[in-house]
Amino acid sequence: MKMLPGVGVFGTGSSARVLVPLLRAEGFTVEALWGKTEEEAKQLAEEMNVAFYTSRTDDVLLHQDVDLVCISIPPPLTRQISVKALGWSAVAQHSSPQPQSPGLKGSSCLSFQVARITGIGKNVVCEKAATSVDAFRMVTASRYYPQLMSLVGNVLRFLPAFVRMKQLISEHYVGAVMICDARIYSGSLLSPSYGWICDELMGGGGLHTMGTYIVDLLTHLTGRRAEKVHGLLKTFVRQNAAIHGIRHVTSDDFCFFQMLMGGGVCSTVTLNFNMPGTFVHEVMVVGSAGRLVARGADLYGQKNSATQEELLLRDSLAVGTGLPEQGPQDVPLLYLKGMVYMVQALRQSFQGQSDRCTWDRVPVSMAASFEDGLYMQSVVDAIKKSSRSGEWEAVEVLTEEPDANQNLCEALQRNNL
Amino acid sequence: MKMLPGVGVFGTGSSARVLVPLLRAEGFTVEALWGKTEEEAKQLAEEMNVAFYTSRTDDVLLHQDVDLVCISIPPPLTRQISVKALGWSAVAQHSSPQPQSPGLKGSSCLSFQVARITGIGKNVVCEKAATSVDAFRMVTASRYYPQLMSLVGNVLRFLPAFVRMKQLISEHYVGAVMICDARIYSGSLLSPSYGWICDELMGGGGLHTMGTYIVDLLTHLTGRRAEKVHGLLKTFVRQNAAIHGIRHVTSDDFCFFQMLMGGGVCSTVTLNFNMPGTFVHEVMVVGSAGRLVARGADLYGQKNSATQEELLLRDSLAVGTGLPEQGPQDVPLLYLKGMVYMVQALRQSFQGQSDRCTWDRVPVSMAASFEDGLYMQSVVDAIKKSSRSGEWEAVEVLTEEPDANQNLCEALQRNNL
Repeated sequence: MKMLPGVGVFGTGSSARVLVPLLRAEGFTVEALWGKTEEEAKQLAEEMNVAFYTSRTDDVLLHQDVDLVCISIPPPLTRQISVKALGWSAVAQHSSPQPQSPGLKGSSCLSFQVARITGIGKNVVCEKAATSVDAFRMVTASRYYPQLMSLVGNVLRFLPAFVRMKQLISEHYVGAVMICDARIYSGSLLSPSYGWICDELMGGGGLHTMGTYIVDLLTHLTGRRAEKVHGLLKTFVRQNAAIHGIRHVTSDDFCFFQMLMGGGVCSTVTLNFNMPGTFVHEVMVVGSAGRLVARGADLYGQKNSATQEELLLRDSLAVGTGLPEQGPQDVPLLYLKGMVYMVQALRQSFQGQSDRCTWDRVPVSMAASFEDGLYMQSVVDAIKKSSRSGEWEAVEVLTEEPDANQNLCEALQRNNL
Repeated sequence: MKMLPGVGVFGTGSSARVLVPLLRAEGFTVEALWGKTEEEAKQLAEEMNVAFYTSRTDDVLLHQDVDLVCISIPPPLTRQISVKALGWSAVAQHSSPQPQSPGLKGSSCLSFQVARITGIGKNVVCEKAATSVDAFRMVTASRYYPQLMSLVGNVLRFLPAFVRMKQLISEHYVGAVMICDARIYSGSLLSPSYGWICDELMGGGGLHTMGTYIVDLLTHLTGRRAEKVHGLLKTFVRQNAAIHGIRHVTSDDFCFFQMLMGGGVCSTVTLNFNMPGTFVHEVMVVGSAGRLVARGADLYGQKNSATQEELLLRDSLAVGTGLPEQGPQDVPLLYLKGMVYMVQALRQSFQGQSDRCTWDRVPVSMAASFEDGLYMQSVVDAIKKSSRSGEWEAVEVLTEEPDANQNLCEALQRNNL
């Protein structure tokens, strides 16, 4: 266990409260904790007994005992931090080096030049980006030092139900895949106060928060990429007790979309966050010979020739055994379970290696790469575009950095619409 | 019970085998049975012990003991028979009177002129039409003698779950309706041999067969009409053991569609007939204060303030008590139950009236009128149009008889696409 990397956690209050205990349960040491403000960082660090805390990105990234960085923060911040973490030099085009921080131990003496020469960089597991431009820059950064881990933490991929589902599909349990049908019903995603989750442009809303990972999951399971998409985003609840006055929610609380995928596969997804007091998460893949359906973390299947459904996998992870006893209310149990499995996979990837930076690709082979991250973001962008145009939109994955002015033009055009 | 009308049944083998026993169970007398061929009619009549059978429409419609006509046949035939049944004169524009039939009792002597003068016509309960032009002609016919019953037999409306659901929605159980979400998963609708159900243009396919009634149901429940629709129809299984060679299926076995309805209500519907060995029928209405969901014939609900779902109505109708002991395999239990409730409502409507033709509107107040039939057909036509164009299509309900040449043009254009 000694060889496990030290972890730097970039989290908001609730994500840090989940991540830190899960990492520790698997034997990782949390060496540094980042918070949006010095005060928030301090409070979280004290609450969770982490020795080093900061609100400065570089203080974590240059920390000598941090070998793995876990980033679970609002989408607009993810690109900047992950790109920096993956190789200081890669960010040179976009930002100038920060002055040295007096609070740093060890690595604080490293200048930008030294970092560039030594190729400093951390292994990164992060949340999805805010836009496909951000996701594209993350791909560029991840290619700079390909030996570094760069994973998008779609925890669904780590759930045994989906690992098994993918395997069964490849073993032709369902025959030729024809239809994917997924739905998430849940209460509101809004926090008690106004924040990024209320704002469509900051990566808020059901499509971005959960739909992105469903898009990724369906492609992961079937091996088929979305080619054309159609969707509609709606905001039914624009104001509530906490969000009122001139403020209102612009992010979607209801979204459906369809994807025409390679090989003639059709997917339809319904995301409805207007159902307090429930959490339904169903992913179904229907083929010519049968179907598989994951309800929550359990997997069921039925061959066309069978008279009834069979239980293929019951997820045995229970609160209190593998899960933290008190999961935060705003992380659904399914995602909490996924995080447990992801952290276990990370542990398996790092354990028994020759040093704390080296990792084995096999235990995390199901994970989403930054390329997958770009793909999922491109699909989500196309769905948003479709919701504005009302038409089927082709999925276009960026292959070069877009012109900044063009983005501005598009944003202006969109506002006019 | 003596005052119940005599019934003339237009059925295919399987629909007649359901309808005749259900009608008799409620005290109706089945006076005449129509079959596609004389041979089929004879065989069915002998099997079900009906004295009079024929393959000639007029023989049933002019039968003196027939006061109520139940039409449950392939969609392309429905318009012609229902229009004739509702008033002989109304069909004068479209067809010339048939010569007298030697097999007729009593009414056979009525000439076209006499029929016109006496305003002969039968009460009609029929299945959906094949096209909105057909549905429009049926509306015209139904307005000719408005005292005649003219119902489209969407049996879903008669199920207690949906009667209750409509009532609860009007009593604000869900608050302001925001979202409707319906899905039907089932095995193939195809018959063992090639027939109209395989052919999109003849009213085959999942959208036409079941989607039409879901469209109608959602509008019935919410009081909101579809204004714009978007959808996609797919045929995954084009050939099977029974349908091969140069023949192939053109009707959809998978369809999803969305409806933007009055008052900002969004509906999304998934119809998947590639799941043999299952029958899932879920209709959910989500509002600002809670939701209602009918799973099969049972109704569940949850207010936003509640921690869990409540069972609001368990359908107690069981096979063997109210249902025929052996329901045909190709009619799902849910629809079979709906037919039982519909025939019960018909009995209540006719019983205790002064003569066998008069009926009370209250017991059948939940039924779909021919106007509703035109609306549902118009929505389905718009969904089919959307599937071809890829765009949101406005729902346009016919207000006048379209030019026949225009239809031909459109059909030709469509074939070119």
